Amino acid sequence: MRKAVILLSGGLDSAVTLAQARSLGYACYALTADYGQRHRIEISRAGKIAAAFQAVEHKVVNVNLRSFGGSVLTGNDPLPHVRENPGDQNDIPGTYVPARNTVLLSLALAWAEVLRAEVIFIGANAVDYSGYPDCRPEFLEAFQRLARLGTKAGTIGSWQIKVEAPLINCSKAQIVKLGEKLGVDFSLTISCYNPGPEGRPCNACEACMFRKKGFSEAGIKDKPEVVNGL
Amino acid sequence: MRKAVILLSGGLDSAVTLAQARSLGYACYALTADYGQRHRIEISRAGKIAAAFQAVEHKVVNVNLRSFGGSVLTGNDPLPHVRENPGDQNDIPGTYVPARNTVLLSLALAWAEVLRAEVIFIGANAVDYSGYPDCRPEFLEAFQRLARLGTKAGTIGSWQIKVEAPLINCSKAQIVKLGEKLGVDFSLTISCYNPGPEGRPCNACEACMFRKKGFSEAGIKDKPEVVNGL
Repeated sequence: MRKAVILLSGGLDSAVTLAQARSLGYACYALTADYGQRHRIEISRAGKIAAAFQAVEHKVVNVNLRSFGGSVLTGNDPLPHVRENPGDQNDIPGTYVPARNTVLLSLALAWAEVLRAEVIFIGANAVDYSGYPDCRPEFLEAFQRLARLGTKAGTIGSWQIKVEAPLINCSKAQIVKLGEKLGVDFSLTISCYNPGPEGRPCNACEACMFRKKGFSEAGIKDKPEVVNGL
Repeated sequence: MRKAVILLSGGLDSAVTLAQARSLGYACYALTADYGQRHRIEISRAGKIAAAFQAVEHKVVNVNLRSFGGSVLTGNDPLPHVRENPGDQNDIPGTYVPARNTVLLSLALAWAEVLRAEVIFIGANAVDYSGYPDCRPEFLEAFQRLARLGTKAGTIGSWQIKVEAPLINCSKAQIVKLGEKLGVDFSLTISCYNPGPEGRPCNACEACMFRKKGFSEAGIKDKPEVVNGL
């Protein structure tokens, strides 16, 4: 059975990505980073999602990006207000975490090489998103090239590790519809950057706004995000 | 003063690289990864080297590559024997750590972006080395390209973060000579993959062999590697 490493944050997009990888027949190894995010409740949600889709293994790796700072997601400042024109690549908000996807993909690459996995799946999306540079196709292509040059697998090994972002060109509504089709339990996922103690979404941050728009446009009712025992 | 992030392992090459960055006038921010290496004594050595060269800050980041496995450097198996033809890119030894330099550079990138640093210095070397794919110029060039595409700095920010590997084409002997010229205290550095409890080199691993060859060819006497208090 072909293996894949799936970057799983506990959010909507990565849950749908895991569901997609499963539907394609991959043995799925889910990887979550505890990087010092303020919304670390997503880590426990990732575990539930991994279990729901029969991931072979779910690994949580600590990498303290909070020690570098540079983002409201790894600090204590108030979250920025929702912008009028989110997704503008010339206006990257304070929720951007420097080099986060580079770090996450490099960890996935390490595991993929050890597992002899063929693919790294990432839920990156370049449509209804916040304009982060490390969610764009050209970034992901550059990473795949790097993965070939920087591994034993890609040089003298017998296989290339590919990077797949099946949602890269989907709107949030399309992602919701795909998730529904693939049987994603939306109640397990959490999108909010600033959730309450029980995982209750703030309904005020950009991530909440994108989620709300997606469900609304898809004509699907979002499930309550409060899960017993988080 | 221009800022640089220096990947500092505690070994000879990265110490000389830090010395070089200082001599070029950079304000140096030294970054060491505690990645689960068996020779973790190098982490405390890195601290001493950073202090010796007046690094503005020395940060140690935990990232548990041991949890992925795939290398004798992050496991408990015996080290491989020294090969007859080390450096052969078609024979990568078991000391290769999957995606290590990709992970290290991505962490350096995160910090560099937050600091507004211009350069990441890495002591990678493609001459007297073990043939690791992630020590080659083409890998480092690919990472620099990725750094541009994947950061706010490189897209809408006003600066590109460059990757510099000043030792990439040096022999070990040339590195030793440069270190001598730049005032590196070799006794602080440790190269051995399998050191004794006081940092005593095993004199049997490939890293010891490269070091020995370098000092011998440079005509410089290596200083004892045993340092009080590690």
